[in-house]
Amino acid sequence: MIDRQAITHIPLSQYAFANSVSNMTIRLRAARGNLSRCTLWYGDRVCPRDPVEVTPLPMEKAAEEILFDWFEVTFDTPYNRVCYYFELESRDGEKILYYADLFEQEPPKTRSEFYQYPFIRREELAVVPEWLRCSVVYNIFPDSFASGKRCISGESSQMPWERGLTLNTRLGGTIRGILENLDYIQDMGFNCLYLNPIFTAGEYHRYDLLDYFHVSPNLGTDENFLELVDTAHEKGMRVLVDGVFNHCSWQFFAFDDVVKNGENSRYRDWFYDLTFPVVRPKDPGEIPGYACFAYERKMPKLNSSNPEVQAYFQKVCTHWITRFHVDGWRLDVANEVDRDFWRGFRRAALQAKPDAVMIGEIWESSESWLRGDMFDSTMNYDFRKHCRDFFATGELTARQFHSRVIQMLYRYPTGITQGQLNLLDSHDVSRFLTECGGDVRRLNLAEVFLFTAPGVPCLFYGDELGISGKEEFAFRQAMAWDAPPRDHRCLIRKLTTLRKEEAVISGGYRPLVAGENGLYAYTRQNDDTAVTVAVNVGENAAAFCCPKGEELLSRGFSDDTLEGFGFGVWLERLKP
Amino acid sequence: MIDRQAITHIPLSQYAFANSVSNMTIRLRAARGNLSRCTLWYGDRVCPRDPVEVTPLPMEKAAEEILFDWFEVTFDTPYNRVCYYFELESRDGEKILYYADLFEQEPPKTRSEFYQYPFIRREELAVVPEWLRCSVVYNIFPDSFASGKRCISGESSQMPWERGLTLNTRLGGTIRGILENLDYIQDMGFNCLYLNPIFTAGEYHRYDLLDYFHVSPNLGTDENFLELVDTAHEKGMRVLVDGVFNHCSWQFFAFDDVVKNGENSRYRDWFYDLTFPVVRPKDPGEIPGYACFAYERKMPKLNSSNPEVQAYFQKVCTHWITRFHVDGWRLDVANEVDRDFWRGFRRAALQAKPDAVMIGEIWESSESWLRGDMFDSTMNYDFRKHCRDFFATGELTARQFHSRVIQMLYRYPTGITQGQLNLLDSHDVSRFLTECGGDVRRLNLAEVFLFTAPGVPCLFYGDELGISGKEEFAFRQAMAWDAPPRDHRCLIRKLTTLRKEEAVISGGYRPLVAGENGLYAYTRQNDDTAVTVAVNVGENAAAFCCPKGEELLSRGFSDDTLEGFGFGVWLERLKP
Repeated sequence: MIDRQAITHIPLSQYAFANSVSNMTIRLRAARGNLSRCTLWYGDRVCPRDPVEVTPLPMEKAAEEILFDWFEVTFDTPYNRVCYYFELESRDGEKILYYADLFEQEPPKTRSEFYQYPFIRREELAVVPEWLRCSVVYNIFPDSFASGKRCISGESSQMPWERGLTLNTRLGGTIRGILENLDYIQDMGFNCLYLNPIFTAGEYHRYDLLDYFHVSPNLGTDENFLELVDTAHEKGMRVLVDGVFNHCSWQFFAFDDVVKNGENSRYRDWFYDLTFPVVRPKDPGEIPGYACFAYERKMPKLNSSNPEVQAYFQKVCTHWITRFHVDGWRLDVANEVDRDFWRGFRRAALQAKPDAVMIGEIWESSESWLRGDMFDSTMNYDFRKHCRDFFATGELTARQFHSRVIQMLYRYPTGITQGQLNLLDSHDVSRFLTECGGDVRRLNLAEVFLFTAPGVPCLFYGDELGISGKEEFAFRQAMAWDAPPRDHRCLIRKLTTLRKEEAVISGGYRPLVAGENGLYAYTRQNDDTAVTVAVNVGENAAAFCCPKGEELLSRGFSDDTLEGFGFGVWLERLKP
Repeated sequence: MIDRQAITHIPLSQYAFANSVSNMTIRLRAARGNLSRCTLWYGDRVCPRDPVEVTPLPMEKAAEEILFDWFEVTFDTPYNRVCYYFELESRDGEKILYYADLFEQEPPKTRSEFYQYPFIRREELAVVPEWLRCSVVYNIFPDSFASGKRCISGESSQMPWERGLTLNTRLGGTIRGILENLDYIQDMGFNCLYLNPIFTAGEYHRYDLLDYFHVSPNLGTDENFLELVDTAHEKGMRVLVDGVFNHCSWQFFAFDDVVKNGENSRYRDWFYDLTFPVVRPKDPGEIPGYACFAYERKMPKLNSSNPEVQAYFQKVCTHWITRFHVDGWRLDVANEVDRDFWRGFRRAALQAKPDAVMIGEIWESSESWLRGDMFDSTMNYDFRKHCRDFFATGELTARQFHSRVIQMLYRYPTGITQGQLNLLDSHDVSRFLTECGGDVRRLNLAEVFLFTAPGVPCLFYGDELGISGKEEFAFRQAMAWDAPPRDHRCLIRKLTTLRKEEAVISGGYRPLVAGENGLYAYTRQNDDTAVTVAVNVGENAAAFCCPKGEELLSRGFSDDTLEGFGFGVWLERLKP
């Protein structure tokens, strides 16, 4: 029998999407092992003949989770208005048709009763810019990274700014410090920088913005930053900056104005849920009379749906793209800002630079922001979560981990998944090495996965030098420039090189071994190349048959055995 | 055991939505009969304490389909940023937690691993204007309705227009004709008119627009229309007009310009996929060198993502709202126009009239257009389909029909479902009476359902006089003003009166009887009132216990028996 309750298809979602104006992918999810066959019947929604002429396409079982099978077909469509239904067959021979969320014996009576892909609109294609898909990202927390070549002062400072305000640093990192270490970053193979906030702000983390139009003076000058971006571009590296538009500092000029002028302020509609008079509470525990980032009174929430506010930040957007040539934005607290703001922001960005990218800070599944009108990508914290539970704590078996990976990959359209910013670490979480109990072998295995899984790998500064840390000051500690040279950087270099293989960027993802222990192996494959990866999460050696192809890197692999915490990567050219 | 593959919850969808800034609904779907209990645990996403403090809320089994149970809870939330997870318990005692699409024994490790409702943004609330929810709509196809009081000429005409073009009518209906029969429409209890296209166009159906700024001269003058709207408003009736912005006539001035001036035309970007030179094909079968509505060469497709085109039609939008006071738009071929166009159109409309409504012509499930940024409502053709299969052809049992109804109601948030434009007939489908094989008893039962089901009832002109018709000219036939007076209109009058009961507008929907035959009974209930409806689809009498309350209308009900094709409606005031 067909397990009807397990069948899922949702039109206009990750289950039905266009890859180009003439190519689309249709997916259906079924209970694991339930269906022996799944066929897509599709036709032209506006077929001049009646009934609509339909074409069958066999759907491939593209992936398996513990609970589900994913059936999928990607095809060139001669129609840009497509209607379709499914023919399902269970292993025990039951056959049924499925359309409009109904199980039926007979095909649809009229064309409107099919599933519909109404029109492949070229403006609505969600296509991630090629350069992002090919990026290997190095994420720098500016205060912590460097103040000179291979060094950081480690000294805090209080710099006087306007209106008697002070700008604080904690460890003294600068823009010049980043510039002087571009060679270090490039030498490891990274081709994209993602910088946490660099605009004028009060605190060392710079998420409390005072001036969106200038580099924070305690970080350097605007000219320094222009030089950094231009130098990076000369080296073939892209630069992403962090945009904080959900909130600002309570000393931001517009908020200062509402504090001073109350209901008469011309900025009274720039903030969310103000109550007048607007008072800055003295006590950190006091809930202020205005909406904030969380309950942080020093970070009032902007009214992002106000057209004036939208226009202001669109100017910010184009300012940094046009004058400073930045390539895109990581966007802070993206899921608490209204969608209209992001759509306008995106339009402004693309007008200034057609291949600019927008990466939203959204930790959870973010399909509704990834439909081509807002973000190209989101920060993939689920990637970290699954890696934590497999590589760091070992609480998942390879089978369970693989199931979670498939669930993660199939929650978005294929191209969107390939643009996800995969990360093990960021400025907002404990260092992954700390999650690993300090066991660098576990971190290394997770890094092998990071650089060979679908999505854009993003490494947080210093992970390559074994930085650990559980709390904020610790995981944002000074870059460990003095750490003894280790083979960790060398591993990262090999992994970034490997990552640039087209098969690893866009190839399929297939499991080879995913059983009840920590041995996990998979292939990334396209028409030309197969890359096989094996990792052994655990102390015990495991038998693993050497795949065909050249051994690109390995640790603890010999005689068809992968030692505890060993790994290996093999590459086979399928065409000469 | 919990049937894990049947569990469905999708954040930011019909499974999790805000009803106001401080009230939300969370749903979970499970296999029918599988769960004995479902509890929502929710907390403040930015709770200052760690771990997040969570509150349990029991979820009610709100509805049952054949395959699924719907669990639901609606609650006032003290937080506008909500995180949540589910506790599930099966009838046989298995307990499990569900969050982030994972089944787990332990609560989430960190707050980011909960399901998230990131922020209830007041601008993004999808709230259907109150007046639409309370509407009872009469849909007029202008050419076919009336040319005078209780009459229509039935004569076609060819009126010369500009540039040697001709405007055609088929049956001679006019705006004055509608005006002179407003009393007829109001007498039946309708409080809203929805007019198919009335702007200048070439064909009798007027979907081939020549001039968006004027009433078609063969239908009357702009002044006639203004008088119609103002008179309707004086009578407490709203007026919706039909907006055709996917395509225009191939004689529309801008298309004419591209035909004449080719690549030099200033309108060259107003159309989708033009190839130059632009030629109007002589042969109806020829596929033209430009995109069309379907393959209809006389209706070239507009490039709705062009900002100039958007601005032009926003002017059209505000023109009719501001100068002619129309209350909203039914929007043709809405699912083939880009979403950006609709968002701009909506902004323009709401600026001109804050409670203007937008109703998209989308036949299939249209959740992605009903999120508050595009349409308030869509034309609910699935309503017609399910009614056809139960009331007209009798191929569904009451049990199957009820299951389809629940599926239909739960595919959108509650408030959105209440604003759906439910219909049995329109200008695009065979008359429902024809689907009934001419059996008006079946039509009547469907009408009882139409006026008592959740959603806005919409009646196509002449259904109340028994108009039938399978093909276009037949179902758009002249209004049957000469039909002998029948009790059908009287039934409609009773149903529109009943429909205005608040319980029928917004009350819950619960089945009473839905078994393996055609007897179907349900209640609509709110705190004050319970309305019970019973219909018997089929020749055989069925036992049905008389509900409490006053009998509002009935046919063939006595001695706790509902005769074949009988029905009854009872109303009980729960509070004095």
